[in-house]
Amino acid sequence: MSYDVITISREFGSGGRTIGKEVAEKLGIPCYDQEIIEKLAEESGFSKDYIEDKGEYATHKNWFANAFASSGTHHGSSNQDYLWVLQRRIILDLAKAGPCVIVGRCADYILDKEYNCLKVFIHASIEKRIEHILANYGERKESPEKRLSDKDKKRKAYYKYYTETEWGVAKNYHLSLNAGVLGVERCVDIIADIYNME
Amino acid sequence: MSYDVITISREFGSGGRTIGKEVAEKLGIPCYDQEIIEKLAEESGFSKDYIEDKGEYATHKNWFANAFASSGTHHGSSNQDYLWVLQRRIILDLAKAGPCVIVGRCADYILDKEYNCLKVFIHASIEKRIEHILANYGERKESPEKRLSDKDKKRKAYYKYYTETEWGVAKNYHLSLNAGVLGVERCVDIIADIYNME
Repeated sequence: MSYDVITISREFGSGGRTIGKEVAEKLGIPCYDQEIIEKLAEESGFSKDYIEDKGEYATHKNWFANAFASSGTHHGSSNQDYLWVLQRRIILDLAKAGPCVIVGRCADYILDKEYNCLKVFIHASIEKRIEHILANYGERKESPEKRLSDKDKKRKAYYKYYTETEWGVAKNYHLSLNAGVLGVERCVDIIADIYNME
Repeated sequence: MSYDVITISREFGSGGRTIGKEVAEKLGIPCYDQEIIEKLAEESGFSKDYIEDKGEYATHKNWFANAFASSGTHHGSSNQDYLWVLQRRIILDLAKAGPCVIVGRCADYILDKEYNCLKVFIHASIEKRIEHILANYGERKESPEKRLSDKDKKRKAYYKYYTETEWGVAKNYHLSLNAGVLGVERCVDIIADIYNME
């Protein structure tokens, strides 16, 4: 089977972003991650920080409040819904342009009907993720445990809200890997080998 | 990292049992699956059918009823709890005897603290699982969809009841594979390669 796109869903701090980038390098295809945020910022006029905050990490509660607020709306729908529609189109355009790796942003769900996606989920233990976020983003006022737990909850809620399916449930992916135990290199090899298989 | 045991949790009809057997053959180590039921039958005096019915596929409701019933008890605890204790000991003994593959029976949870397990979850689409059960077990009075959905629910409830963790959630395994898409052979290779890695 040949795949059009590799989608990488990942827990925050699991190394999924690095794995996506390295898989793409190994296969000689582009990897889209922050580029999607940049395109969203460019097309919507919202700042990248606003998009990150109100996008993948927004809570259902916020959307609900926004949907009925006079502010936070755009052409009659909430800003989040407007960003979702833009994001969907951007991701469909990227997939149309040729084989690629897409990290996050519900690409697995968005592309599922029209493209043959290899759907990957990357996770790691809480200890490994704490190591990763402290090394990459440093200390914050909130404990690393709290930061991770908040991100997980919000990402899960966002995914559920727009896709009506469960984020992180094994059967929604072709392949789920614990990058903390297997290591980045091994994960990259497994994904690239499956992409290349007949 | 070297692993003591490979545990294979699987959806009914996903091909997980075949994958476990073939991984073990490839690695030259034993695979325990039906052997655990046989040992349980031998040690408890219950029939294999009773164990299969009251074991992995029992519902919480049944256990609850049994726990307060005068029948269905053994030395003051429910038959299911008694079988769980026996099963736990049998699985710990098997792991102690040397490297092996163990299919199902919550071995991932039972061995987690004492052994270095490579924890695998095997799943497949509903269509592939229907094909599999019709080919292997034939038609029944109930539709294949109903049979699969009942088994999933019961297995999930059993796992949750005894382990207090979620069955089929990616982060509870090192590796989750869709055997319907990847194929048995590819799954066997991935698992055996990881087991063999330094």
